[in-house]
Amino acid sequence: MIKSFLMLGQSNMAGRGFLHEVEPIYNEKIKMLRNGQWQMMTEPINYDRPVAGVSLAASFAEAWSKAHPDEEIGLIPCAEGGSSLDDWHPEGTLFQHALSEARFALKTSEISGILWHQGESDSHNSLHETYYEKLLFIIETLRKELNLQNIPLIIGGLGDFLGKKGFGKDLTEFQKINEELRRFAYEQDNCYFVTAEGLSANPDGIHLNAVSQRKFGYRYFEAYSKKCHILKPIPNENESLKVNTNYSKTELIYISMLNLALGKITYDEFESQMSKVMQL
Amino acid sequence: MIKSFLMLGQSNMAGRGFLHEVEPIYNEKIKMLRNGQWQMMTEPINYDRPVAGVSLAASFAEAWSKAHPDEEIGLIPCAEGGSSLDDWHPEGTLFQHALSEARFALKTSEISGILWHQGESDSHNSLHETYYEKLLFIIETLRKELNLQNIPLIIGGLGDFLGKKGFGKDLTEFQKINEELRRFAYEQDNCYFVTAEGLSANPDGIHLNAVSQRKFGYRYFEAYSKKCHILKPIPNENESLKVNTNYSKTELIYISMLNLALGKITYDEFESQMSKVMQL
Repeated sequence: MIKSFLMLGQSNMAGRGFLHEVEPIYNEKIKMLRNGQWQMMTEPINYDRPVAGVSLAASFAEAWSKAHPDEEIGLIPCAEGGSSLDDWHPEGTLFQHALSEARFALKTSEISGILWHQGESDSHNSLHETYYEKLLFIIETLRKELNLQNIPLIIGGLGDFLGKKGFGKDLTEFQKINEELRRFAYEQDNCYFVTAEGLSANPDGIHLNAVSQRKFGYRYFEAYSKKCHILKPIPNENESLKVNTNYSKTELIYISMLNLALGKITYDEFESQMSKVMQL
Repeated sequence: MIKSFLMLGQSNMAGRGFLHEVEPIYNEKIKMLRNGQWQMMTEPINYDRPVAGVSLAASFAEAWSKAHPDEEIGLIPCAEGGSSLDDWHPEGTLFQHALSEARFALKTSEISGILWHQGESDSHNSLHETYYEKLLFIIETLRKELNLQNIPLIIGGLGDFLGKKGFGKDLTEFQKINEELRRFAYEQDNCYFVTAEGLSANPDGIHLNAVSQRKFGYRYFEAYSKKCHILKPIPNENESLKVNTNYSKTELIYISMLNLALGKITYDEFESQMSKVMQL
């Protein structure tokens, strides 16, 4: 059975990394949920906005897949750009919609982890003062509703680039949110914190760039697999940028169909690619 | 309250028209559902696949908006590429997921119409013989579950380009499906048929191209607003290709933020655009 992971939070969980800045990940063992069903993953996974792009969930899944070559992983995209912690109140639409998506996923998968990244929208107006208790209520309700008491929750920190320029400029209290996130992970069972230290932003000053998202996902996987906090960049995290291109037959067919449907190749070119694939 | 419309069917409802082949539609009165909430529409609306693109729903909504300048319209994307009619059985995931999305939409909108386009996946193996009764069960169940007894259902025909080449080549029975769709619309209350006559495909031989999707949406709106079948191309349907570019302040801000988040402009350029917009 597919091992699935919830993607919850705001834009940096949804992913805004530019697709052209990293190699795409094609791996038939990695799925994403669409219309309540699983399909092979292609980024953007979490299409909350027209600007959705590379998310940490992709390299998390790729690292997970390498560690579990005989299993399948599924990603459940529920993140919403710009959402504050209040927007995730269990009575609100985002939480209820995430529950609904999770219940579709549960028909054909086992939810095995929760990936959380949120806080930019709470990095002002002293919102950090109530962040911990609000997050606790959200997570406790989520675990209870979906019967997920014992699975790991991985929460990432906010980038050091905040509070400086662009859309990040006014988010001056991000370090206080980071303190709350870290304290939460230290104090709560089955919860691990992942630092965003050393990661970089797009020109908008708020969104993690594609390379940083790949590294961040690698850190999330380290935290998940080793059940520990990640408080420093990982020495070999650039590994996450090297993508397997030794594609399986299924992956080659998938890529050719993608290119045909996007008009990048003609039908004759597609047929010629298919006849080569079939000889493999 | 927003007037909302369900998008049901397979890839040509989801939309596979190439985005670069038509002018984009930016209209603050047109919304789409994401994570159970409304946001301003940008294509692709129905992101069921990485190849999702221009759908008939966009020009449908634009025509509706012109006819109702003081109201807002919302699109509820539920279409799934490659889905057969059996995949839409009321006990299946696609139907149940569409119900779930519709119920989120119903919290803040009034569902005012159902847009249906499906049948390519049933254009072989004599599946047309059971198409009518299966579709009837789906529509009757949908109307009952959501209490939508009296709203129009618009069903479009399959393209004449099928059965010839590419992925469309083996779909030789599409005319028989068209007969069933037309008969269905003639016999059922609140149901109107829209011809796909004269529309063209992408190089894959199965997906309506972007220009055709714009025209098709215009035909859907004619059927919806006049409550009649559209059995021939509409003389002035090229109107659907002319897009309003006299943008409102909200639309200009939206477009600038989109371009910034996509890395198409720098933050300095964004700020300069914003200061111009604020003077309008």
